[in-house]
Amino acid sequence: MPFRLIPREEKFFDLFEQQGTNIVSAARVLEELVHDYGSAKAKAEQVKDLEHAGDSLTHELVKRLNTTFITPIDREDIYALASRLDDVLDLIDAVADRLLLYKITKPTAGCVDMAKVIVKTAEATDRAVRCLRTLSPYYHKHCIEVNRLENEADRLLRDLLAALFEGVEPIEVIKWKELYETMESVTDRCEDVVNVIEGIVLKMA
Amino acid sequence: MPFRLIPREEKFFDLFEQQGTNIVSAARVLEELVHDYGSAKAKAEQVKDLEHAGDSLTHELVKRLNTTFITPIDREDIYALASRLDDVLDLIDAVADRLLLYKITKPTAGCVDMAKVIVKTAEATDRAVRCLRTLSPYYHKHCIEVNRLENEADRLLRDLLAALFEGVEPIEVIKWKELYETMESVTDRCEDVVNVIEGIVLKMA
Amino acid sequence: MPFRLIPREEKFFDLFEQQGTNIVSAARVLEELVHDYGSAKAKAEQVKDLEHAGDSLTHELVKRLNTTFITPIDREDIYALASRLDDVLDLIDAVADRLLLYKITKPTAGCVDMAKVIVKTAEATDRAVRCLRTLSPYYHKHCIEVNRLENEADRLLRDLLAALFEGVEPIEVIKWKELYETMESVTDRCEDVVNVIEGIVLKMA
Repeated sequence: MPFRLIPREEKFFDLFEQQGTNIVSAARVLEELVHDYGSAKAKAEQVKDLEHAGDSLTHELVKRLNTTFITPIDREDIYALASRLDDVLDLIDAVADRLLLYKITKPTAGCVDMAKVIVKTAEATDRAVRCLRTLSPYYHKHCIEVNRLENEADRLLRDLLAALFEGVEPIEVIKWKELYETMESVTDRCEDVVNVIEGIVLKMA
Repeated sequence: MPFRLIPREEKFFDLFEQQGTNIVSAARVLEELVHDYGSAKAKAEQVKDLEHAGDSLTHELVKRLNTTFITPIDREDIYALASRLDDVLDLIDAVADRLLLYKITKPTAGCVDMAKVIVKTAEATDRAVRCLRTLSPYYHKHCIEVNRLENEADRLLRDLLAALFEGVEPIEVIKWKELYETMESVTDRCEDVVNVIEGIVLKMA
Repeated sequence: MPFRLIPREEKFFDLFEQQGTNIVSAARVLEELVHDYGSAKAKAEQVKDLEHAGDSLTHELVKRLNTTFITPIDREDIYALASRLDDVLDLIDAVADRLLLYKITKPTAGCVDMAKVIVKTAEATDRAVRCLRTLSPYYHKHCIEVNRLENEADRLLRDLLAALFEGVEPIEVIKWKELYETMESVTDRCEDVVNVIEGIVLKMA
């Protein structure tokens, strides 16, 4: 059994790990949505349900934070981590929602590529979150992987934007520019998550 | 006379309540502006004046925070609350400003609806702010009301965006998409305000 | 030799001043880029290099922060200052990058004007950063100058947006609206930097 920092407040780690699971689930449902667009409406509802579950988790984390005297990690870090994880879920939900709202008839190849990067980034973020409870030194590998994937998403976004301005109708440019940028920002928020995690581990080491 | 937390530092509560009043005033002037668009220029100047008054208040709050040794609520919460209230005012001003800058000839029905939701959200936010001084348990009711109104604004935004992409000129889409999104974000920033308030009350309870 | 606050932790000030230098350099290269657009590609690469150098500096600052027991200024202020300075560099890089990505054939006069304001704002921000080490009272003058320049950039943005919507093609509106807004936001982030600096000096005075 691994060494535990402060046994009494395991609950914070439980909640963070549940949120990590929610993020991976939401990312995978988004990827299914863009792959199998016929079922988009049902998939978008699944993402929305995961986002609502995430909201409840965030609320419980903040409430627990404000009523717990001694916390296993610094209060401001718990708050930052809870907020950044919540941001990731919100943005995944925003992507699913806007695809339907903007009546996109068929996701582009770039959209499918971006969804794949989002799944990988979510998985690496979740792995980094799971290093917190035991302060596992593997956290570093996962943080670097998230940084690498964020760079990949950024390069992909740049290629997609450049192509978008070549001969697409203005209305389509407006829709897809927002969609691609929101997809890329999912990986930015994952990077924010692992930055908080790096800070926590460095302080505790 | 209600029980006072730390009598010496009432001034912080005075300033927060003045800012609450500024936000409600700015929201109401914005609603008048979109209802009676003939007077838009004068009304936009009124909003700008309120935004400037808010800036001075925020500046005084931050200065007082940095020079006060003991504060009635946690320093970071005072700073967060001052910043979030300032954000609300800035965005109300941005909406009024952009309506004129973009030479909108007539506010849409959706714009008028959104202005109404903004007024209600500002009023509920102000009521939550006024619960701080005495730690009134009514704060919770007002926070829930702000959350409800933010959801209402979000649903309204989605309907307006969906309609916007059906047959409106690209230039109009660009203008109204920004205007509607900025209006909706006023309620997001109000939600941020009440989240800070909830945190403060939970810590002090 | 000026009075030093905490002699042992000069390194934080060294790093902040290096970042100030990076910001001024990046702003000047951006101005050269828009003045002498034939060399745009090489100049954009120079900005990118400065942005990468800034990333390494930020990383070193955060690492040092998390492993230093006693810091010369409050931990959260060091973190905030490092993050806000990093944001300035990121946005200068985003402007240079998007000019090329969007295949802008010739920067507008407004773009050249905005680049000039960015250089002045970066210089004033750097001067404010350099007041931290000795808590020089001149910081105030530089902060006021940054605020003034941010207002100038905002007025310029408003004029440019108003003109943009008069008879420009939608696709050009989308490109230039993002470019102008990103340029203006460089000065917003500089204002964030000096707000953090003001807070630090007030607390220490």
